Amino acid sequence: MSHAQPRPVRAPIGTQLTCKNWLIEAAYRMIQNNLDPAVAENPDALVVYGGIGKAARNWDCFEQILESLKNLNEDETLLIQSGKPVGVFPSHVDAPRVLLANSNLVPAWANWEHFNELDRKGLMMYGQMTAGSWIYIGSQGIVQGTYETFAEAGRQHFGGDMVGRWVLTAGLGGMGGAQPLAATFAGACSLTVECQQSRIDFRLKTRYVDEQARDLDDALARIAKYTAEKKAVSIALLGNAAEVLPELVARVKAGSAIKPDLVTDQTSAHDLINGYLPVGWTVEQWKAAAGDASRHADLKAAAARGCAVHVQAMLDFQAMGIPTVDYGNNIRQVAFDQGVKNAFDFPGFVPAYVRPQFCEGRGPFRWVALSGDPEDIYKTDAKIKELFPHHAGVHRWLDMARERIAFQGLPARICWLGLGERHKAGLAFNEMVRTGELKAPIVIGRDHLDSGSVSSPNRETESMKDGSDAVSDWPLLNAMLNTAGGATWVSLHHGGGVGMGYSQHSGVVIVCDGTEAADKRLARVLWNDPGTGVMRHADAGYEIAQQTAQERGLKLPMLGR
Amino acid sequence: MSHAQPRPVRAPIGTQLTCKNWLIEAAYRMIQNNLDPAVAENPDALVVYGGIGKAARNWDCFEQILESLKNLNEDETLLIQSGKPVGVFPSHVDAPRVLLANSNLVPAWANWEHFNELDRKGLMMYGQMTAGSWIYIGSQGIVQGTYETFAEAGRQHFGGDMVGRWVLTAGLGGMGGAQPLAATFAGACSLTVECQQSRIDFRLKTRYVDEQARDLDDALARIAKYTAEKKAVSIALLGNAAEVLPELVARVKAGSAIKPDLVTDQTSAHDLINGYLPVGWTVEQWKAAAGDASRHADLKAAAARGCAVHVQAMLDFQAMGIPTVDYGNNIRQVAFDQGVKNAFDFPGFVPAYVRPQFCEGRGPFRWVALSGDPEDIYKTDAKIKELFPHHAGVHRWLDMARERIAFQGLPARICWLGLGERHKAGLAFNEMVRTGELKAPIVIGRDHLDSGSVSSPNRETESMKDGSDAVSDWPLLNAMLNTAGGATWVSLHHGGGVGMGYSQHSGVVIVCDGTEAADKRLARVLWNDPGTGVMRHADAGYEIAQQTAQERGLKLPMLGR
Ligand SMILES: NC(=O)c1ccc[n+]([C@@H]2O[C@H](COP(=O)([O-])OP(=O)(O)OC[C@H]3O[C@@H](n4cnc5c(N)ncnc54)[C@H](O)[C@@H]3O)[C@@H](O)[C@H]2O)c1
Ligand SMILES: NC(=O)c1ccc[n+]([C@@H]2O[C@H](COP(=O)([O-])OP(=O)(O)OC[C@H]3O[C@@H](n4cnc5c(N)ncnc54)[C@H](O)[C@@H]3O)[C@@H](O)[C@H]2O)c1
Repeated sequence: MSHAQPRPVRAPIGTQLTCKNWLIEAAYRMIQNNLDPAVAENPDALVVYGGIGKAARNWDCFEQILESLKNLNEDETLLIQSGKPVGVFPSHVDAPRVLLANSNLVPAWANWEHFNELDRKGLMMYGQMTAGSWIYIGSQGIVQGTYETFAEAGRQHFGGDMVGRWVLTAGLGGMGGAQPLAATFAGACSLTVECQQSRIDFRLKTRYVDEQARDLDDALARIAKYTAEKKAVSIALLGNAAEVLPELVARVKAGSAIKPDLVTDQTSAHDLINGYLPVGWTVEQWKAAAGDASRHADLKAAAARGCAVHVQAMLDFQAMGIPTVDYGNNIRQVAFDQGVKNAFDFPGFVPAYVRPQFCEGRGPFRWVALSGDPEDIYKTDAKIKELFPHHAGVHRWLDMARERIAFQGLPARICWLGLGERHKAGLAFNEMVRTGELKAPIVIGRDHLDSGSVSSPNRETESMKDGSDAVSDWPLLNAMLNTAGGATWVSLHHGGGVGMGYSQHSGVVIVCDGTEAADKRLARVLWNDPGTGVMRHADAGYEIAQQTAQERGLKLPMLGR
Repeated sequence: MSHAQPRPVRAPIGTQLTCKNWLIEAAYRMIQNNLDPAVAENPDALVVYGGIGKAARNWDCFEQILESLKNLNEDETLLIQSGKPVGVFPSHVDAPRVLLANSNLVPAWANWEHFNELDRKGLMMYGQMTAGSWIYIGSQGIVQGTYETFAEAGRQHFGGDMVGRWVLTAGLGGMGGAQPLAATFAGACSLTVECQQSRIDFRLKTRYVDEQARDLDDALARIAKYTAEKKAVSIALLGNAAEVLPELVARVKAGSAIKPDLVTDQTSAHDLINGYLPVGWTVEQWKAAAGDASRHADLKAAAARGCAVHVQAMLDFQAMGIPTVDYGNNIRQVAFDQGVKNAFDFPGFVPAYVRPQFCEGRGPFRWVALSGDPEDIYKTDAKIKELFPHHAGVHRWLDMARERIAFQGLPARICWLGLGERHKAGLAFNEMVRTGELKAPIVIGRDHLDSGSVSSPNRETESMKDGSDAVSDWPLLNAMLNTAGGATWVSLHHGGGVGMGYSQHSGVVIVCDGTEAADKRLARVLWNDPGTGVMRHADAGYEIAQQTAQERGLKLPMLGR
């Protein structure tokens, strides 16, 4: 269907405009940045990340999006329907320049089968979260999200300080590999059990993990040493989590003083064929069985038995008073189905650690330097520290990120800020653009792992206090409000993260072009967007959110009625 | 949960403002108008129409909505989540004053069971279409929608003229009762078969049907006479459609010259317990069986057999070259399940008659006089005629409506206008408000039975040319674009018309307050809103839409690529 051919794409940098103003230019650069070979997983297929999360429906659509943006007037709005530019309509300068809707299906048809059929016909595209909404910036987000989770655990359980503490977990895969670095960032030691040497090697090479222990005794000795020295060192251990964790439980029960301060897991227990090594199996046996459909039933059963043992050990740790959480890999459900009836005694990571932050409108805020110059980001890093001098966690993150995280594509930064903080940052950046302190405008956006713009009952809105997990009025209100406020582009997606049928969510991006008009828009949008998160959680009955609303002066008409 | 008590509600009229400007006042009056006892079906329960379609979640929420509107500033936006006022946020004067999201659920939970559970907990409300979006105006819309359907049939099959033609149909219930009057409006005679005398009596009394025939011979004699005289007279016949239609087929086959020009049906075949009288049963037997659960299986089977015979007769008419359509009552599916394998040979009314209009952005446009003075509506009627001197159908409708349709609540008018027409009407009304020709501002809105703002694969988007029936990116883009354009309020709903899981749709309302700012907003919103309908149909491959887009100068980047 598409006549245009794949080609290497890179966002233009510098101060020369291709489009009619910086707001439009920002969209023009950011869609290209999403497809930069240094950013995208499979740029030829327009795939940015997350399975088949794409930035445009096909190459014809991609080229026409660029063309439409080049021609777009400052009072027009371009509509994108699942990655295809379908219309250009009159609006006004304070309205968004682009509005996007990706992968949305009427509920009774909202499943992968129907989606795939439409996708094959060229009528649809999977937008994931930041892929189809043109604000993906590489893997910085994974480290940072995990860091925030650990940092919040530190705040909740250890008076805000993880120093001298240690995290016990497993899995050094695509996402799980961020755990040791994130723990280090949070000030903690960590022990990560991983059954494949190749995965450990990769993480050692990229400095995501510091050291590998020879065996469990060696690992515990290192942990004891580093925690005593208050050094945040990460240790990998080759082994099967379903063997190592029960052994650790047994040692603690037998009197060992070396016990973890936080327990979690990121093996791929959600996929019992390819994701979880059964107890007593070698990795080679596992891979062979995974590659042979006739052995899948056996493999699944064996992996599930392993998960049950693994979860039992996690429950044992919890029973000792050690904070324990599921990291979104479904391992509790597997164990529950195996007969571990109290598997859900420990919570998921969102209700446990992320929700309290959502209640304050906090979540993965991010920004990108359109100049292409890393110095611009370093200056904004400094500005954030200056604006929030008491935010120790943020300071620590910014320092670590600068040192250990490589930029991919346009220089960018992620940092969790909440209601009352984001618009301050936005206004400060806009001022820096205005005065010329920064070389070019800054683009501000956020993930859809967010407080007010996501309904995802298996993740972001799992176990809401009032049972409103599946109510999706909230992301729709968020998208309309951000449109009303004058964001630069706004998107509404379905199925991100958890797949077709299971989520609805909205994205927002706004540009600091240094103008006074942008000041007004930034003040509104970066207040309103996290504000809807506080509102949604206050409405669900969370006290932190109700307090935040009151303290910050959010207008919630029914609060307290 | 709610402490406020039900009370009779009526919209204020006249020129005295309760709110801070007319845009906010319009919302304030329209939500109250929706609950006027002359408008709403069950105002005490806040139910406006369409089963449990409500205007506010409960009485506390209703009172707080009024309160919030009274206090709302001209640069603020009120958010309504399923009938509850949840937040007030800064926006700007060209942004909507109210944004609403009603009954939306994440797809995997989008069913009546889950909705009812949330509804019982006080967390949800069913918004239907214009109930929860505060622009319902009574039953004028039903007559008009049916009229447009018949008029379009006239255009397609009879050179634009139904005079001397006759429509054969059945059912004089809540919706079906509009058929004879609508046929009259379209210039045609009609014969409507109805099995309950009480229903015929009610329609005779309210002048929705003109005469009742004694028997089939009498009915056909009257039809022959009136069609020859070119008089548009409607005739009711007491009987069972599954008996009368086959008898008519037999007569035509035997040489009778009196055969219908259009065949359809509005018995409630979608509900085989309460909606369709089986052949050979009396109405009393039917009602008794419907009231006795133990007899439901028998009743259903008998009703289904009747539907099969009924559809077979409709197919026979079609085979004679007579245009035949299903009017959204699912009778084809029932017959198909009974073994009538070609039941779907005749189309639904949307693909057959409404879609060509959707392709031009046409649909039930409506407006309301906030003054409360019917004269204001009569003046707008005249203005429409003046603006569109060649729109014979519109002129006929306006004359008939003025004569035969009683206002309910605030005086209002419905009339189908399309892309390029609506903004002209809006600007003309705004001018009339500005000059004082009208006593107070006019509110403009539309139904969600609409071209660009609905995804409803069993109705509005049934059998789309490209198979994109279930793609719901379109209504979401429509809502965001109307928000960007500066509509006065915008809503996003789920489940209207066809129930939970089966539709997503968006509403829009915009106020003519006589200002120049309103001119700009009206020019945008009333161009863009029908424009998204033309866009959606052009994208699906409809030539009329592609032509309309070209003629009207709509910017569709991928058209022709
Ligand atoms: N909900 C969220 O937001 C979220 C965030 C991060 C991760 N997750 C989940 O975490 C899991 C991990 O994600 P990933 O991308 O890193 O997956 P991955 O498949 O790339 O990595 C899993 C790792 O676990 C190892 N492993 C498997 N079985 C083991 C065992 N018995 N003992 C020790 N190691 C074992 C594997 O060798 C592999 O390296 C997934 O289930 C993912 O869905 C969810
Ligand atoms: N898709 C749409 O937009 C749309 C629009 C209008 C109507 N409809 C459908 O049309 C149908 C009618 O709606 P309604 O509100 O008028 O329903 P209703 O139940 O109020 O009326 C149905 C009428 O049909 C009569 N009837 C039943 N069986 C009969 C038979 N065998 N012969 C003759 N008369 C018979 C009943 O006595 C009753 O008066 C419904 O299925 C409705 O969903 C759909």
